[in-house]
Amino acid sequence: MTRFTKFAVALAVVVSALPFVAKADDKDVIDYRQHIMKTLDEQVASIGMIVSTQIEGDNLVAHVQAIALTASTALKSFEPKVAGGDSKPEVWAQWDDFSKKMKEFSTRTAALVETAKTGGANAVNEAMVDALTCKGCHDIYRVKK
Amino acid sequence: MTRFTKFAVALAVVVSALPFVAKADDKDVIDYRQHIMKTLDEQVASIGMIVSTQIEGDNLVAHVQAIALTASTALKSFEPKVAGGDSKPEVWAQWDDFSKKMKEFSTRTAALVETAKTGGANAVNEAMVDALTCKGCHDIYRVKK
Repeated sequence: MTRFTKFAVALAVVVSALPFVAKADDKDVIDYRQHIMKTLDEQVASIGMIVSTQIEGDNLVAHVQAIALTASTALKSFEPKVAGGDSKPEVWAQWDDFSKKMKEFSTRTAALVETAKTGGANAVNEAMVDALTCKGCHDIYRVKK
Repeated sequence: MTRFTKFAVALAVVVSALPFVAKADDKDVIDYRQHIMKTLDEQVASIGMIVSTQIEGDNLVAHVQAIALTASTALKSFEPKVAGGDSKPEVWAQWDDFSKKMKEFSTRTAALVETAKTGGANAVNEAMVDALTCKGCHDIYRVKK
């Protein structure tokens, strides 16, 4: 073996002995952020049923808390620059604006938890248009359905 | 008008003047509990991607918190005795067992939050089989897919 071949073989042995480190491939990245967005859909729908009095309001605070928590996870899921799914390339081309909007969404839903605790369903009904800023992002950053 | 007719008319006027009070019809009840179950699906999938290292773990605690919160809302959504959707009639025929299992699910996912905070993804990976008791209910109470 030449010195280079010896080096290449040694390197291959070392690399193969490294613990398996999985990397998010593109499909994983898209799946993950879609799990988060679908959670938001389901929880917003739950709140909608309560504020419209279709469903009793016992779970109102928990639903708003779940939305606030999920909103806090959303930005991270878009950090890998992987277009596709329902995301337009503008998400990454205008990252400063996108991330600002996502942080506002997280801040406002956290405030909505306090509104739910103190004011109940009527207060949430009034405040949710300003707190759930979904459309402000979807209009710009989501593929039209 | 007879006295009875006068009474009936007066009653009708009073009733029609009552504020509209919406009641959950059967479809609403089923939709609502499905919003909760789908949230659990999406959040469990998110955790699965993290413990399998497909996705970085920054959001792990928030996902487990979202599951614990959503688990705490689930039992309430089954209280109206409305079969249908994916729920078997056994949910209500064996309510004591069903509600016991649901409360255990809520308690165990709340404990899993502490596990996530202190032990991270590896600890959640070990503990989640016992904490996410989904299958224990689905095998008995959910329509086979």
